[in-house]
Amino acid sequence: MHRTKVKVLEGVLDANDTIARANRDDFDRAGVAVVNLMSSPGAGKTSLLEAVIAQLDGVRLGVLEGDVQGTQDAERISGVHTPSGGHVPVAQINTDPGFGGECHLDANMVRSALPSLPLDELDLLVIENVGNLVCPAEFRIGEDARAMVFSVTEGEDKPFKYPLMFRACELVVVNKIDLLPHLDLDLEELLSNVDDVNPGVDTILASAKTGEGVDAFAGWLATRAARAPLPA
Amino acid sequence: MHRTKVKVLEGVLDANDTIARANRDDFDRAGVAVVNLMSSPGAGKTSLLEAVIAQLDGVRLGVLEGDVQGTQDAERISGVHTPSGGHVPVAQINTDPGFGGECHLDANMVRSALPSLPLDELDLLVIENVGNLVCPAEFRIGEDARAMVFSVTEGEDKPFKYPLMFRACELVVVNKIDLLPHLDLDLEELLSNVDDVNPGVDTILASAKTGEGVDAFAGWLATRAARAPLPA
Repeated sequence: MHRTKVKVLEGVLDANDTIARANRDDFDRAGVAVVNLMSSPGAGKTSLLEAVIAQLDGVRLGVLEGDVQGTQDAERISGVHTPSGGHVPVAQINTDPGFGGECHLDANMVRSALPSLPLDELDLLVIENVGNLVCPAEFRIGEDARAMVFSVTEGEDKPFKYPLMFRACELVVVNKIDLLPHLDLDLEELLSNVDDVNPGVDTILASAKTGEGVDAFAGWLATRAARAPLPA
Repeated sequence: MHRTKVKVLEGVLDANDTIARANRDDFDRAGVAVVNLMSSPGAGKTSLLEAVIAQLDGVRLGVLEGDVQGTQDAERISGVHTPSGGHVPVAQINTDPGFGGECHLDANMVRSALPSLPLDELDLLVIENVGNLVCPAEFRIGEDARAMVFSVTEGEDKPFKYPLMFRACELVVVNKIDLLPHLDLDLEELLSNVDDVNPGVDTILASAKTGEGVDAFAGWLATRAARAPLPA
């Protein structure tokens, strides 16, 4: 069974990459940079985005939410005021209609959501993937960059247990650092383990609760937005 | 692409169930009860098991560890002393040789590990699944019962975002409650959301750090062990 399954899934990945390239072409034509944001469930992706939206001035941001079920995160994001008093456009993908709830976004799901987003009016689209440290790293969705949020509550050993995710990302935001005084976590060891798996990867220490590091994350996102091609 | 993929994966699930039944027959013949233990990455499955092993007297426990890569958890478990001064038998499955690291255990992977475990000498086998709130709930592995560990750091909304996982389990251990004073989490709302998704499901409030609730979890596991069929 296993060999057949691997072969089928390799075919699925090839098909996915073709659609991911089509997504990327559309993003480039619209002049929008795209970040694929990944993490475990509850690591704080949405809370960090809420904090970033309130700070990210001069960058026209849009958000695409990916969840197995529900629209909680899209509702949270659409309720946040930008520095100019507006709101960011948000669309939601639910993976539930597929295989009992897909554990990741794929390029086809993202493609199906593009008509719901005003790409021509955006500089940056953040796609919040399904909470999962394994499969989201295996499916390209047309993004320019991949970033992950890692909560300090998850433990030092996770880079070695989920190496593909840590290796796939250009940025690791180490979140919930306000909890460090209450944990046994060795932060130096965690950062060393991240660097072992992905040498030289950018890291930001952050807390969506206290606001620490949110400016650095906003700055990283603004830099990605500035690198987007000019609209066609 | 999507429809073909769903069909292929339905076939995979049928094949999986056949192997899961074979596993279950072997477990029944050996008179061992089997619990499939699931959670997000870093929710505290291994820490809770370490605490349980030190308390679980009179139950011959074995552990099967599932991880994408690495043997950290198996090493931790095999280092713990039981009340009688011994150690529990441990085996490790790495899902990495498959599809870039499978995000869950399936029945075939578990079957391949059975020769490494002295089933005839066990009353209870706990299988620690890959950290993931989606796919592990979709694959039966021959278990008698499914339990999940949920960390209070993950937020109140997760039962609605990952309903299949919460619905699949006979027990939800709400872990890391020592952190509650430092979080904005509304525990009542979390427990109400768990009950909305899986009405009447057993819950235990626990902290592997302070030891709170470990006796209740050990008691639940001992009850499962007592229900195993007599060895053939």
